[in-house]
Amino acid sequence: MDKKGILLVISGFSGAGKGTVVNRLREKYDEYALSISMTSRKPRPTDVEGETYFFVTREKFEKTIAENGLLEYAEYCGNYYGTPRAFVEEQLNAGKNVILEIEIQGATNIKKAFPESLLIFITPPSAAELEKRLKGRGTETDEVIAKRLKRAYEESDGMDTYDYIVVNDELEECVDEVHRIIDLARRQPLRMKSFIGEMKEQLKVYDK
Amino acid sequence: MDKKGILLVISGFSGAGKGTVVNRLREKYDEYALSISMTSRKPRPTDVEGETYFFVTREKFEKTIAENGLLEYAEYCGNYYGTPRAFVEEQLNAGKNVILEIEIQGATNIKKAFPESLLIFITPPSAAELEKRLKGRGTETDEVIAKRLKRAYEESDGMDTYDYIVVNDELEECVDEVHRIIDLARRQPLRMKSFIGEMKEQLKVYDK
Repeated sequence: MDKKGILLVISGFSGAGKGTVVNRLREKYDEYALSISMTSRKPRPTDVEGETYFFVTREKFEKTIAENGLLEYAEYCGNYYGTPRAFVEEQLNAGKNVILEIEIQGATNIKKAFPESLLIFITPPSAAELEKRLKGRGTETDEVIAKRLKRAYEESDGMDTYDYIVVNDELEECVDEVHRIIDLARRQPLRMKSFIGEMKEQLKVYDK
Repeated sequence: MDKKGILLVISGFSGAGKGTVVNRLREKYDEYALSISMTSRKPRPTDVEGETYFFVTREKFEKTIAENGLLEYAEYCGNYYGTPRAFVEEQLNAGKNVILEIEIQGATNIKKAFPESLLIFITPPSAAELEKRLKGRGTETDEVIAKRLKRAYEESDGMDTYDYIVVNDELEECVDEVHRIIDLARRQPLRMKSFIGEMKEQLKVYDK
């Protein structure tokens, strides 16, 4: 089995609880590291530098792109968002599974650049449940909730580009299921290249 | 989740213990059914009709092909081997996972015809262990063992066409791992078509 960690992309509808799933996964199991994105947008009052994002200027972001310092990046509403490369590579080499909590466009870019990455989409069991969770937060206006639900409809078109879709109905079950999926991903040929190579090499002596 | 069973192809080197894995899987878990192949070759003394194979004449086999009665078939050394369609479809519709224990050529044909099938390759941990197991049986001549090992070398080229490669080191672990892989395969988008369809339909009302 390859010793390197797995590059894990987690996406999902806003309100699906993916942040909670990711936090619980990291609490419960040792082998995960969370990648923090870099952005050129201005911090908001709830943001924490190095926790929600690494905040940099537009110039610094463009310099990082030019130096090939990002695994992927995209521009939304005039701001850059990207995944710093160095942290991810260090952690993968140390055998940690690195989680990127990013949206579908970034997920697609990651899969293209790293076919051995694993893409998981977290969804609530139904649209009614999604609406209930968004309203239950009590922190957003009806207008914002309506926007998020409309966005969920648009995003639902991309669900089948993911490797796995996990229903977040009961949190602990969902977390364990995600963990089992990652564990078994190590049995897929594209992550067993060294085992396959050794096996072929060993069997070669019988080819006579 | 789709209620239909999963069409499961199990292959592996001769001596990897795939027959034992399949038997133990069926003993341990209810939801598996084993597909029995049809062949036009003559029965050997160790064969049992309907257990090792369904034995038919060449004419009957060709009639079954013409009637579209086989999921796949191939010809080896002048004999036909194929998978009867009716049994597989009945069992899948009843929610059973149907196991086909077939070789790589048949496996590739099944995957082409049924992309939602799941292909698992069983391997011993090393070539030395494979040789040890083949010799340990004590039932085959050195010549037959040498042929099987040469065949294993040829087959090792096809390992990465499988969805998963499972190492059969400790039997119970291997069986449980195969079972977990199949269980989680139900979270892959191509086997969640009805869930995805319903979700999109439900979310459509928010598209305004």
